[in-house]
Amino acid sequence: MTTDFGIQDGYAGVVKGVILSACPSANIIDLTHEIDPWNIDSANWIVGVSAPFFPADSIHLAVVDPEVGTDRRAILLQADGKYFVGPDNGIFSNILETSKSIRAINLVERKYWLAKTSYTFHARDIFAPVVAHLASGIPAKEFGPELDPQSLLRLPLLTTIKSREGVRGRVVHVDRFGNLITNIPGSQVCFGSSCLLADREIGPIMDTYSSGNDGEPVAIVGSHGHVEIGIYQGNAAPVLKAGIKTEVTLRFHPSDQLD
Amino acid sequence: MTTDFGIQDGYAGVVKGVILSACPSANIIDLTHEIDPWNIDSANWIVGVSAPFFPADSIHLAVVDPEVGTDRRAILLQADGKYFVGPDNGIFSNILETSKSIRAINLVERKYWLAKTSYTFHARDIFAPVVAHLASGIPAKEFGPELDPQSLLRLPLLTTIKSREGVRGRVVHVDRFGNLITNIPGSQVCFGSSCLLADREIGPIMDTYSSGNDGEPVAIVGSHGHVEIGIYQGNAAPVLKAGIKTEVTLRFHPSDQLD
Amino acid sequence: MTTDFGIQDGYAGVVKGVILSACPSANIIDLTHEIDPWNIDSANWIVGVSAPFFPADSIHLAVVDPEVGTDRRAILLQADGKYFVGPDNGIFSNILETSKSIRAINLVERKYWLAKTSYTFHARDIFAPVVAHLASGIPAKEFGPELDPQSLLRLPLLTTIKSREGVRGRVVHVDRFGNLITNIPGSQVCFGSSCLLADREIGPIMDTYSSGNDGEPVAIVGSHGHVEIGIYQGNAAPVLKAGIKTEVTLRFHPSDQLD
Repeated sequence: MTTDFGIQDGYAGVVKGVILSACPSANIIDLTHEIDPWNIDSANWIVGVSAPFFPADSIHLAVVDPEVGTDRRAILLQADGKYFVGPDNGIFSNILETSKSIRAINLVERKYWLAKTSYTFHARDIFAPVVAHLASGIPAKEFGPELDPQSLLRLPLLTTIKSREGVRGRVVHVDRFGNLITNIPGSQVCFGSSCLLADREIGPIMDTYSSGNDGEPVAIVGSHGHVEIGIYQGNAAPVLKAGIKTEVTLRFHPSDQLD
Repeated sequence: MTTDFGIQDGYAGVVKGVILSACPSANIIDLTHEIDPWNIDSANWIVGVSAPFFPADSIHLAVVDPEVGTDRRAILLQADGKYFVGPDNGIFSNILETSKSIRAINLVERKYWLAKTSYTFHARDIFAPVVAHLASGIPAKEFGPELDPQSLLRLPLLTTIKSREGVRGRVVHVDRFGNLITNIPGSQVCFGSSCLLADREIGPIMDTYSSGNDGEPVAIVGSHGHVEIGIYQGNAAPVLKAGIKTEVTLRFHPSDQLD
Repeated sequence: MTTDFGIQDGYAGVVKGVILSACPSANIIDLTHEIDPWNIDSANWIVGVSAPFFPADSIHLAVVDPEVGTDRRAILLQADGKYFVGPDNGIFSNILETSKSIRAINLVERKYWLAKTSYTFHARDIFAPVVAHLASGIPAKEFGPELDPQSLLRLPLLTTIKSREGVRGRVVHVDRFGNLITNIPGSQVCFGSSCLLADREIGPIMDTYSSGNDGEPVAIVGSHGHVEIGIYQGNAAPVLKAGIKTEVTLRFHPSDQLD
């Protein structure tokens, strides 16, 4: 489960109650319920980087849904053997971008919903019972008609720009430790590569944060496989006055100048 | 589980360790551990609105227990086929109010407690092992003598006042999104109904928050089945300077005046 | 699981995904993911007080790992029938201190790791697959060579000093309620014992916080079996201007003076 429900109001727990009511053997794992309210970009990022580490046949329920109750579609994706259930609002953009085989279902078959549905809590009333029935073995096609995957909403991509001298990208996520995670793939890093955050020189790409001097920013290839900038035992985002969308430049050779 | 233990000290995890020690197959779901410390009203509200969405035979462990270690009773309720375990301090008031059949047990049988009990952590020492043994099939009557349900502590109800012109109620919960959830049942809303928050005109009851203008408050019938007031992609509670117990009025016809 | 990963970035969820990929029947319980970033002392304390309440054969995965990616060792402990997996950085000091039988393994056998390991996320790439294979029945010795338990890193102990008049200790944890938990064992408390926080008189040891006057600090023997100081329905740490390492004195007889 990936949602912006928070952990104080019992909303995620109620969704689990509905799932277990129809599928008592479900093993439900939280990715996070602390997505910033209505931040679809952030949920898309977390679902995208996390799904590869879950078992084949996993069902990912992702709900950040500011348009709940309007005519935005409810969808089920089957992507490279895994399942994704949620609103058709771009929350699965990374999954759509990176999967080889995609099948999409429009969740309109009401017999798999709760008998009474609200306007504002489709996670509980529509998505949870669909997840439970899917986990119980109901085939995907039973939940509604197929959709053309090209018709699904995708978020505008944060792209990188590659030149002879390097790669320009952006911060796409700031984690709990204040680390600035970018969209520049680690595969672009070569021997002697160095890094700029906006106009600030960060220095060569190191192996780990602890390679840096105390309090100094360090660039590494992070666990998600992308270039990230942090401070050893420090909080980079406020110290470096950077955040989501701050520009980051990877220079192939530190002596090169990009501009 | 519904508690005010928070998620930083490992208290809820230890309770789960005790449950799994005596009942290894238990599937334990968190409603929330982020009830405001000692706020029994809030726990009562969350347990009441959430329990209907859990499977028959579920056991709800709810512990917000400022009087732990005094002579307040420890109880087990069997209410409409579901089980509730916790202190007799009003935390199950909504369950007692809405259930058709109620049976109550006074948890005094020490052989189902941990061998050593503390004065301050009955969730771990008394409630958790009782939950585990109950989940393992020990009948309710084994845990202690029956209690008259009328003798159980109930919180003063936040009542609504109905007149020919409308219904007066109060905010009973503010959720993570800042939405103001009231005790006015959605069944009272009819065509043309509109809403006042204290003296402020909110306007007609809409279907969803996204029906409103950006930044303007909107009243809807929320997912819990009660009237609630929010702001589309905004945080109503601080903007409208409202909170728990703020008065809300539902007018049957917007042209009517209540006073 | 006990980590400093927080709950917003999906890190703990990904670790669970890896565990379930190799051991689908695992039942994974969170102690906490809200350890202060890099605070090994705090994780050590929580693992130490919590492990006794978990079933025999439990596997505790504890990761607060500022030196990840350096040559600090990755270890598996078998201690009094329970398993502990994490970095060799002192996070299991209390377990090492209190266990009768200890066996330690150096986790170097790469065939039980993910195929591709990062420098910064060993919980996902090394610890999680080891936990999963261990839970699936792979014997501990398969994961690497044995280590001398004396060679394992231990944190400097916060010791207590006992004299004829009483015991001097320190605050070792501040919990969500602001309670100040000390390292003074409850077994040291005798009839008439009283307590000092730094130079402030707290008074005799009571049974429960609710024995105190509203707003006044009270000392009790807490659920962890140690002396702790709190305020009934209040937050002791800020009110008493105390925190981790504040000195606490237990006087055997209130009339005695220690100095």
